[in-house]
Amino acid sequence: MNLGIIFLSELVGTAMLVLLGCGVVANVALIRNKGHNGGFLMVNIGWGLAVFAGVIVSYASGANLNPAVTLGLAVNRLAKGEPDFVPGIPIDAASIATYIGAQMVGAFIGAVFCWLAYKQHFDAEPEAANKLGVFSTGPAIRSYGWNLITEIIGTFVLVFVILGFSYGRTPAELGAIPVAFLVIAIGASLGGPTGYAINPARDLGPRIAHAVLPIKGKGSSDWSYSWVPVVGPVIGGLIAGWAALVLLPVLS
Amino acid sequence: MNLGIIFLSELVGTAMLVLLGCGVVANVALIRNKGHNGGFLMVNIGWGLAVFAGVIVSYASGANLNPAVTLGLAVNRLAKGEPDFVPGIPIDAASIATYIGAQMVGAFIGAVFCWLAYKQHFDAEPEAANKLGVFSTGPAIRSYGWNLITEIIGTFVLVFVILGFSYGRTPAELGAIPVAFLVIAIGASLGGPTGYAINPARDLGPRIAHAVLPIKGKGSSDWSYSWVPVVGPVIGGLIAGWAALVLLPVLS
Amino acid sequence: MNLGIIFLSELVGTAMLVLLGCGVVANVALIRNKGHNGGFLMVNIGWGLAVFAGVIVSYASGANLNPAVTLGLAVNRLAKGEPDFVPGIPIDAASIATYIGAQMVGAFIGAVFCWLAYKQHFDAEPEAANKLGVFSTGPAIRSYGWNLITEIIGTFVLVFVILGFSYGRTPAELGAIPVAFLVIAIGASLGGPTGYAINPARDLGPRIAHAVLPIKGKGSSDWSYSWVPVVGPVIGGLIAGWAALVLLPVLS
Amino acid sequence: MNLGIIFLSELVGTAMLVLLGCGVVANVALIRNKGHNGGFLMVNIGWGLAVFAGVIVSYASGANLNPAVTLGLAVNRLAKGEPDFVPGIPIDAASIATYIGAQMVGAFIGAVFCWLAYKQHFDAEPEAANKLGVFSTGPAIRSYGWNLITEIIGTFVLVFVILGFSYGRTPAELGAIPVAFLVIAIGASLGGPTGYAINPARDLGPRIAHAVLPIKGKGSSDWSYSWVPVVGPVIGGLIAGWAALVLLPVLS
Repeated sequence: MNLGIIFLSELVGTAMLVLLGCGVVANVALIRNKGHNGGFLMVNIGWGLAVFAGVIVSYASGANLNPAVTLGLAVNRLAKGEPDFVPGIPIDAASIATYIGAQMVGAFIGAVFCWLAYKQHFDAEPEAANKLGVFSTGPAIRSYGWNLITEIIGTFVLVFVILGFSYGRTPAELGAIPVAFLVIAIGASLGGPTGYAINPARDLGPRIAHAVLPIKGKGSSDWSYSWVPVVGPVIGGLIAGWAALVLLPVLS
Repeated sequence: MNLGIIFLSELVGTAMLVLLGCGVVANVALIRNKGHNGGFLMVNIGWGLAVFAGVIVSYASGANLNPAVTLGLAVNRLAKGEPDFVPGIPIDAASIATYIGAQMVGAFIGAVFCWLAYKQHFDAEPEAANKLGVFSTGPAIRSYGWNLITEIIGTFVLVFVILGFSYGRTPAELGAIPVAFLVIAIGASLGGPTGYAINPARDLGPRIAHAVLPIKGKGSSDWSYSWVPVVGPVIGGLIAGWAALVLLPVLS
Repeated sequence: MNLGIIFLSELVGTAMLVLLGCGVVANVALIRNKGHNGGFLMVNIGWGLAVFAGVIVSYASGANLNPAVTLGLAVNRLAKGEPDFVPGIPIDAASIATYIGAQMVGAFIGAVFCWLAYKQHFDAEPEAANKLGVFSTGPAIRSYGWNLITEIIGTFVLVFVILGFSYGRTPAELGAIPVAFLVIAIGASLGGPTGYAINPARDLGPRIAHAVLPIKGKGSSDWSYSWVPVVGPVIGGLIAGWAALVLLPVLS
Repeated sequence: MNLGIIFLSELVGTAMLVLLGCGVVANVALIRNKGHNGGFLMVNIGWGLAVFAGVIVSYASGANLNPAVTLGLAVNRLAKGEPDFVPGIPIDAASIATYIGAQMVGAFIGAVFCWLAYKQHFDAEPEAANKLGVFSTGPAIRSYGWNLITEIIGTFVLVFVILGFSYGRTPAELGAIPVAFLVIAIGASLGGPTGYAINPARDLGPRIAHAVLPIKGKGSSDWSYSWVPVVGPVIGGLIAGWAALVLLPVLS
């Protein structure tokens, strides 16, 4: 195991996650698709199962696929005296940068393939906002402070419950299903106000793709909002890593 | 194991349950959400997976998360001569009060975080009834007697089948999935008339939160109905505890 | 193990199945319910998870819950020289009659509790056809021959795949989930023309309940159609029992 | 084990897959069905669980059910020096032809039974395009090049993740559930532009059935598009077999 494998594993897993996750939004949001107006539950299930598929192909690195998970894991494990992400990969600045860099690149690549898969529907769609909405999240009611709180709460739930899995509460026989169900839950329950980025790479990587790809009739990439789905999840993940440290040994 | 851990475990688990459960109602019911009008199946799946997440973080206390479950378990186990909730915690007035008190406090806290996550949508929503509906259940057709019967039947199914799990019919390898599926089932199948409280803490804790929080434009907390989703589930849970005692050893 | 336990087990399991299964139809079909017009997928998921709950509380008898399953199992096992339903219960006229009788009584009881849970919505519903539709199936386009074919095909899939589970293809660690998923599948895929009885007890027991209960404003119990969801599933189950005998040992 | 059993196993499994898969489209697309206009998520779940049922009854041959899977597996295993599909069946022209031939015949038979189950609704449906849509896929926006790309991407995800299962990432205790969830994911996320054939047999077998069956009021079988859902999945499956060879040993 080395950082090159970590990089490749997180890149492939996050690309799979974002291809399928942005894909379900494209299907529902872009005109003339067979799943057009398929409903928010379909989006939730699509993102949950996108995580499922991404985890399957990212086993070597522990399938973080999300900088908020990587950071939450890091603070949690370092404080517990468990110094590795996976055996042979110590938690340090280099490995954290490798995880997060790979997640960003993977998310960018996944977004590119999503655009290719839905190329004609991007071309046919008249609303520029719908095109951006496939790539990145945006608030239903813009208010940076409250949007940030929603993202913090959603990511806290994600990382806290994921850490709960690792305290032995969840049978290994379930594989990637619990995290898929958790992501469906967060989307349905906390996704209304901001579209639940809960993952800086999932939002920023595709936003960069939106900015650089030659998408017909695209509008702004909404950079003024772009920090919210980065900062919010990072805060939420770090709080969860610390809260899990305090609470989960007691609750197990 | 001591009652302090029990309290913390039930509090954290019930807060997670209510945050996600009330959250999906907020998403569907409150104006301008991305999941607005997402449908009743989305609500059912959201509540079912809310239970899933709550159970994961409430392992130490056996994840009751519901006074009706605690009371049903208590009568069932005491009658069978199994004197403990979990090893080291005998079933008695103090432990029952600890479970139920923690569930109430946790449900209150979960409702507060739900309000924070959806703060702007509560502010934007014009209908006071929709705001209360996020916190607590209400009947589709008000009739205390029939509403009570619906809650009794729904909670009976919940507690009776949960007790069925513990008679060895359900593989431990499935973790928290069976109870999540059961809650989805009850919501879809018996949730039409009353919105399926089937849990006094899930209903009363958030109702108190609704009463005390400074929610913009809120109306009545409907205290005249508030006893139904408390008394009905308690009756249903106790009947199920007794019925399981008689039937499940035979049916196993 | 004796026939009394078999009777009780099948009765309780089928009552649970029908309470939840007819319940989801009531929620979707009857006016003023919170799940009114919740969609056919919600009905499919509701019936699938109704089977899940019913199986949990009917372990002692093997959870047939359906005369078509009982008959399909009987012809399959007798031909293979496996003479028992469950250990100690030989397959013979008395045990078959016990299974089917219990399923019919259980389905009747489940339908009565469904009516109680939805009492006010039955009273408020103006359309008599919607009331009958909660209890029993009816064809979208009436044509006894084609309706029979649809029920035969649906029940064949049910019993053939269930027998496939028992040939070792499906891990025991999944408990009742595979049959629940199978019932969701059949409902979504083959439920359009007739509403997928695929179970004589599920249809006839509630139809008798519809006939005898004092349901306000009820209409005909449609006895002229009532033989289709009995005869079709019996034929489909028997064909599946025979086909499984020939094919499954080869396909395993 | 011999090629006759392989043929029978793939035939039965693919027939089950197509009966249920085309069935859910019939339910949603054809007039007067109980699931009419049930939504794209219902179609996705129906196809996913159709795969689940098909896998259960096709154990002997490894349940490929799809020429793209067979070809992807073949290139992957041969390059790794694993010479068999299943023990006793070497990967060679004869076995590949047996798999693919059986899948085609099975898909044809499944489509015939789907037509029988929905016979009256085919007769009542006024739109010829809806009738063909039950059998075979068609593009939302016709453009052979882009349609091909969408099918390549979708099938790549299917075969790459399935190969990921076999690298030990997915617990055997989950049986056929992971592949069912994967197919739901691909449908929701990548099914919008072309209706996700991702399987040459699933598309071509039913298209032939559409051409030869005496379907009332049927129109063209759209042979000009028919090569896309054959060639696209074959390319996607082959790329996935090669990519998995390179990547998955690293990512495991």
